[in-house]
Amino acid sequence: MTLTPGFTGGTLDRADRVRHDPELLATALADPHARLLVLDGLDPVLDEDGHLTWTSLAEAQGELLFLGFEAGEPRFVSTLPEGMPVPMGRSPALFAMLDRFAPADAANYASARGLVFWHGRNRFCGNCGTHTSVSHAGWGRSCPHCGAEHFPRVEPVVIMLAERGDMALLGRQPSWPPGRYSALAGFLEVGESIDEAVRRETCEESGVRIGAVRYVASQPWPFPASLMVACIGEALNDDIRIDVHELEHADWFSREDVRRALARDPDAPFVAPPPYAIAHTLLTAWVEGA
Amino acid sequence: MTLTPGFTGGTLDRADRVRHDPELLATALADPHARLLVLDGLDPVLDEDGHLTWTSLAEAQGELLFLGFEAGEPRFVSTLPEGMPVPMGRSPALFAMLDRFAPADAANYASARGLVFWHGRNRFCGNCGTHTSVSHAGWGRSCPHCGAEHFPRVEPVVIMLAERGDMALLGRQPSWPPGRYSALAGFLEVGESIDEAVRRETCEESGVRIGAVRYVASQPWPFPASLMVACIGEALNDDIRIDVHELEHADWFSREDVRRALARDPDAPFVAPPPYAIAHTLLTAWVEGA
Ligand SMILES: [Zn+2]
Ligand SMILES: [Zn+2]
Repeated sequence: MTLTPGFTGGTLDRADRVRHDPELLATALADPHARLLVLDGLDPVLDEDGHLTWTSLAEAQGELLFLGFEAGEPRFVSTLPEGMPVPMGRSPALFAMLDRFAPADAANYASARGLVFWHGRNRFCGNCGTHTSVSHAGWGRSCPHCGAEHFPRVEPVVIMLAERGDMALLGRQPSWPPGRYSALAGFLEVGESIDEAVRRETCEESGVRIGAVRYVASQPWPFPASLMVACIGEALNDDIRIDVHELEHADWFSREDVRRALARDPDAPFVAPPPYAIAHTLLTAWVEGA
Repeated sequence: MTLTPGFTGGTLDRADRVRHDPELLATALADPHARLLVLDGLDPVLDEDGHLTWTSLAEAQGELLFLGFEAGEPRFVSTLPEGMPVPMGRSPALFAMLDRFAPADAANYASARGLVFWHGRNRFCGNCGTHTSVSHAGWGRSCPHCGAEHFPRVEPVVIMLAERGDMALLGRQPSWPPGRYSALAGFLEVGESIDEAVRRETCEESGVRIGAVRYVASQPWPFPASLMVACIGEALNDDIRIDVHELEHADWFSREDVRRALARDPDAPFVAPPPYAIAHTLLTAWVEGA
């Protein structure tokens, strides 16, 4: 089964060498074909075909970060203008755009957004508190005081279906759209493997204990910069005891229930997560026998 | 095939509720059975059976961080004393201890070391540069100035075998012990899935392009706090062009070569990585047909 989670399939060659060679960076910056990603805060600006919009480097209002090459042409994004507060969370406008994105553009946007967010929230050195400056062509920040080098953070998150015979455990958070149910999820912590995080998170949120865990797929999730790791775990019990700080409700759903929800059947017992979320990929894989 | 990578199998119940309830934390701190992990800087202090050493909370020289419950008894570790520089890298003494660790102790140590390291290197707010203070029973730091909450960082790393028929690609770094070869590895970046990071890193380091990727296992790696994600990728070409900034040499090895190296056969063509490294787990899985 070939799975193509949302935000994968980026087309930029990240060209690591440019990050380590100031001359290559200078050449890329001087290239007349170099382009700058247009952002509105952290949101993309899409044309009518759902494609990202690019402009000339002269339009940058912050510092230039090198994203990579697209068919040989250098692509950049700018940090937020100095003094602009970093938008937290997702804007309503973005939600509407997520459904329209061309797949490769969604992936290229995920990298750019994650990078811009990280620079905005990490201007100071965690080690000594000094203001840091952009390094590695935009893929780092260095501290002039203590010499620490800081690199963009990626946060691993486990997202999982507990499976019990022909049933899967789904839950819903109070903030979600009406009827939406999805896979449980949580941040992987220091000192855990993926399997261990799946077991801990599932048990914390639902009281369901997990035995064997199998990996299904992964996805970069740009809010702000997670690595979503989707798994299926064999449930060892079926009684549910939800953590009310995390979930509003959780229940077991059959493969047929899930199939109907994915097909957007109006009589399905729940509303499935959107296609760009790896929960959708995970449910699809489970229905197809992963 | 059941795989048990090093640093997995921790026995502490992390008891997330304690992080969100000051009364529960106060009760744990006042528990006469509460114990403090003994560290020498960031290194463990092992008894003659290879077990971690624990003492009373009164011995703490820094701030107490709650690790979890072991058979109902609260376990803590202390931040480094104020003013002690955070040890970077691994000490020679630690290398010797890694071979002696009892498995569950290695896992419990991995969590503690990662946490202590993170507090030591993240005392200041990345957002505004202010000195932050311990929160969430040790699983966070909060900024009194801008209100930002910071949580311990875990860095996903992909580690992979490129596979070509009955051969696997291994490389060596100049700093490694003589004869040691291992799987290629690198940090997963913002905007990448696991598969994409496997393809990019393998190609950057060796010039070998990868098609399909399959996940094998994961491991927390406490130097300082990585999530190692081990995969096998189908190589699309066999000519190797190493990145000399990363590798000293890389080559294709047969399943029989790898089997002999894992068995510590003195005539094996290379020295295998140590059992606590997931590269060892990955090679073992590959030899057994993963
Ligand atoms: Zn610094
Ligand atoms: Zn702050």
